[in-house]
Amino acid sequence: MKKIKSALISLSDKSKLKPLLKELKKNKIKIISSGGTFKIIKKLKFPSIEVSDFTKFDEILDGRVKTLHPKIHGGILNKRNNKIHLRELKKNNFENIDLVIVNFYPFEKTIEQTSNHNKIIENIDIGGPAMVRAAAKNYNDVTVITSSDQYAELIDQLKKNKGCTTSEFREKMSRIAFGETAYYDSVVANYFNGIKNISFPKRKIWHTNLVENLRYGENPHQISALYSKNINNKINQIHGKTLSYNNYNDIFTALTITKSLPKNAGTVIVKHSNPCGVSALKNDLESYKSALNCDPISAFGGIISCNYKITQKIAFEMSKIFLEVIVAKGFDKNALKILRLKKNLRLIDSSNLRFKELFKFNSMDNFTLIQSEDNKSFSRKNFEIVSKKRPNKSQFENLIFAFNMCRYVKSNAIVIASNKSTVGIGSGQPSRLDSCEVAISKMNKFTNPKNEIVAASDAFFPFTDGIEKLVQSGINAVIQPAGSIRDKEIIKFVNNTNTILVFSKTRHFRH
Amino acid sequence: MKKIKSALISLSDKSKLKPLLKELKKNKIKIISSGGTFKIIKKLKFPSIEVSDFTKFDEILDGRVKTLHPKIHGGILNKRNNKIHLRELKKNNFENIDLVIVNFYPFEKTIEQTSNHNKIIENIDIGGPAMVRAAAKNYNDVTVITSSDQYAELIDQLKKNKGCTTSEFREKMSRIAFGETAYYDSVVANYFNGIKNISFPKRKIWHTNLVENLRYGENPHQISALYSKNINNKINQIHGKTLSYNNYNDIFTALTITKSLPKNAGTVIVKHSNPCGVSALKNDLESYKSALNCDPISAFGGIISCNYKITQKIAFEMSKIFLEVIVAKGFDKNALKILRLKKNLRLIDSSNLRFKELFKFNSMDNFTLIQSEDNKSFSRKNFEIVSKKRPNKSQFENLIFAFNMCRYVKSNAIVIASNKSTVGIGSGQPSRLDSCEVAISKMNKFTNPKNEIVAASDAFFPFTDGIEKLVQSGINAVIQPAGSIRDKEIIKFVNNTNTILVFSKTRHFRH
Repeated sequence: MKKIKSALISLSDKSKLKPLLKELKKNKIKIISSGGTFKIIKKLKFPSIEVSDFTKFDEILDGRVKTLHPKIHGGILNKRNNKIHLRELKKNNFENIDLVIVNFYPFEKTIEQTSNHNKIIENIDIGGPAMVRAAAKNYNDVTVITSSDQYAELIDQLKKNKGCTTSEFREKMSRIAFGETAYYDSVVANYFNGIKNISFPKRKIWHTNLVENLRYGENPHQISALYSKNINNKINQIHGKTLSYNNYNDIFTALTITKSLPKNAGTVIVKHSNPCGVSALKNDLESYKSALNCDPISAFGGIISCNYKITQKIAFEMSKIFLEVIVAKGFDKNALKILRLKKNLRLIDSSNLRFKELFKFNSMDNFTLIQSEDNKSFSRKNFEIVSKKRPNKSQFENLIFAFNMCRYVKSNAIVIASNKSTVGIGSGQPSRLDSCEVAISKMNKFTNPKNEIVAASDAFFPFTDGIEKLVQSGINAVIQPAGSIRDKEIIKFVNNTNTILVFSKTRHFRH
Repeated sequence: MKKIKSALISLSDKSKLKPLLKELKKNKIKIISSGGTFKIIKKLKFPSIEVSDFTKFDEILDGRVKTLHPKIHGGILNKRNNKIHLRELKKNNFENIDLVIVNFYPFEKTIEQTSNHNKIIENIDIGGPAMVRAAAKNYNDVTVITSSDQYAELIDQLKKNKGCTTSEFREKMSRIAFGETAYYDSVVANYFNGIKNISFPKRKIWHTNLVENLRYGENPHQISALYSKNINNKINQIHGKTLSYNNYNDIFTALTITKSLPKNAGTVIVKHSNPCGVSALKNDLESYKSALNCDPISAFGGIISCNYKITQKIAFEMSKIFLEVIVAKGFDKNALKILRLKKNLRLIDSSNLRFKELFKFNSMDNFTLIQSEDNKSFSRKNFEIVSKKRPNKSQFENLIFAFNMCRYVKSNAIVIASNKSTVGIGSGQPSRLDSCEVAISKMNKFTNPKNEIVAASDAFFPFTDGIEKLVQSGINAVIQPAGSIRDKEIIKFVNNTNTILVFSKTRHFRH
């Protein structure tokens, strides 16, 4: 328990002050305050001493230097039970500062609102973090408050403990304070790296905000939470049960794939973070039906992401099967009426979701692999037709669709497509031939398309066996990166079977 | 270009100072220094003024307050082209500080070396970060140096520019400085969260160090780098080509699986970040052969992780196939002779690798999912035998092995095992039946074991079809979480076919 006799208040966010000031007054706590905060306190009719009167040093450099003063920092940093400290304090005519209430210049908000570099630089707080860090270090004697959200808890402490705070409370506030200063400087460092396009600095610091604690992780014996860089960029759930780790994971996969589809068109169905049906057809209902037809059994309990607004008609179709989540660019009123009947079905409106961050990270124990997203779009001009037979326009479009989709399928990936929709997806096999077989068996089981069937492979065919299986199953055009020592054999085979072969010259591994 | 006339030096790492001091002297730069740094400079026979002489304020509180003084911060923070600033400086009898060379109390090293909380707290630097942040903010006029690694570059600047630094250099040093302060406070915040077991604070900040820029990411059109939390905990490569993103990713998967094996025994083979063969047999050579036999075709170009030291005999066996990487707890001299003949083969000695971090994070754009690792080991006491037929000891051991392995196989996962080794792995299928079929076909293709074959499923069987397939293929014991509405049907089926069924009551999804 430590009695609070004096407080230093210096705030950028000056809200919610009144009840706090009342409580401080009730406990006869002397208030030292700086600039704008002094004015507000005066306006609220509470007594306080301005920092410059306290230190006898006039603020200089447009406020850049006001609290960076030994009287302030000596008052905060001295150990109350250390006799030498006490003596030094007296000798210098300094006094204790027991409570530090400080929040910082709004750097993060500033970079969101302006790209004026000078204005941004001016919003790097120097004095604030110095006081907060000093108080947090000396939490054994000093209480540090860094957000107006903590006022209620502080008032509660003062009330319950007759003007004192508990050691536990001070320790907690100190821990949060270091989180704040680390977060603040991480935003600053990332801003500087950002303007110079430095992706991989020597020290990389990620700052994230807790969105929610999840019930558990991928499995019930794992704990988990969702964080976000920008708390204003939200997953907008408008109906249904709480989202789970696996829901989020699948939603993120689905959104990543959806992002790659043509504007406002196309449907993606995801199960176990792999697509099990994708269609880029322009007609929304057709695209939904095509995506579903690719593998209606796997779609059971899956997640659907629509690059369009859900109408009543589509909602009616969707209500026929069991889905965990529907993500869409809005829902018609009548669509909502239908879908809301399903209590557990989660509905996400993705209309306002913004995508900015282009790096993905992947951690294992001490290590983190960071890479840019596999979001480079490849088109006709990147590809080379190596077979005698050449694809017509629609075949080429389907080849491009299939190849751009295979980047989202776990390696080894084979995507069979027809009419801008997947009709067979083979994923996650260590052998490419196995992936071909899985994709073919799906195709034969469900859609069984008749003509213009194309296939894409995420990496090269090491042997002719995979491509042979595909051709035997009715595929008449194949796209693959090339690079095997057997490329020539493969070209010979496709020419013998009158099959189209395109080399993409880039691969799409995904693990 | 800005001329440097004065420098403030305050160092925790006092190495490599001499050549820098020479260059400062040559350029007639006045040096202000604090405590220990002053002594070193004196010892090296260079002139400098002690901070307390400069500020006319004696250091107090065991050095907690010495540089937190307006004369220091005014000297750093004033804008040289601002007339009001200039006037205020003169009025206060302050002078410019153009160069700030500061590194911090070694907080990170301290927490590695001691758990004495008071000593740790004492190593939170307050004055240092305040000066560095001030100088970094005012980089337009001030140069900030935060590491002895930067001395050479500073000397080069001073030489090339006749005692000046370029704006580009100052900006770069400022960017790095904010990286340092963010990193420092992140370590402090994580220390406080750590001692209170707080996994998910409101602000979560990850601090990482660049290990190396990678040639590219999963694919050539993606950029990538490897980072680590603790730079001393290294991947020790002793031979072979540079490691790629996919190598690292597979190594991390392989190490995660290896960690779960019995002490110093067992072999793991990974391809496309999925295991394609695992054996926990105690005899090293047998375990290698068994792991390989599970799927020798997929092992081609794979990564092997051995929980033991590689002998000549094993090296000889391994040299027969094409592998990308071998990870092992050391290599015999004679083993190295054999393996080093393969120029491209990467060899990793994992003897000194430590595993501590128990959280994995997974990012998508703005969002990050954080969860604890799926590393809880389940054993006999967690499981319930629900069939009439009961497993004998060895069957139960194989069931536990298979179930503990299926956690590392991408969902849906089916692992068939015999003799403490996998004999069929079905992974990454949206339908459980498909995973059963893949696992069975692998088993029939390669090992074809005759008796005591068990199977594990990472999640429940929704229908009897999967388990039927397994039993028809010779499996006589199955372990699965349970939880389907058809559990009763499944129990009836196993009893009719004299099959053993164990409910694990926990699942092992992995995506």
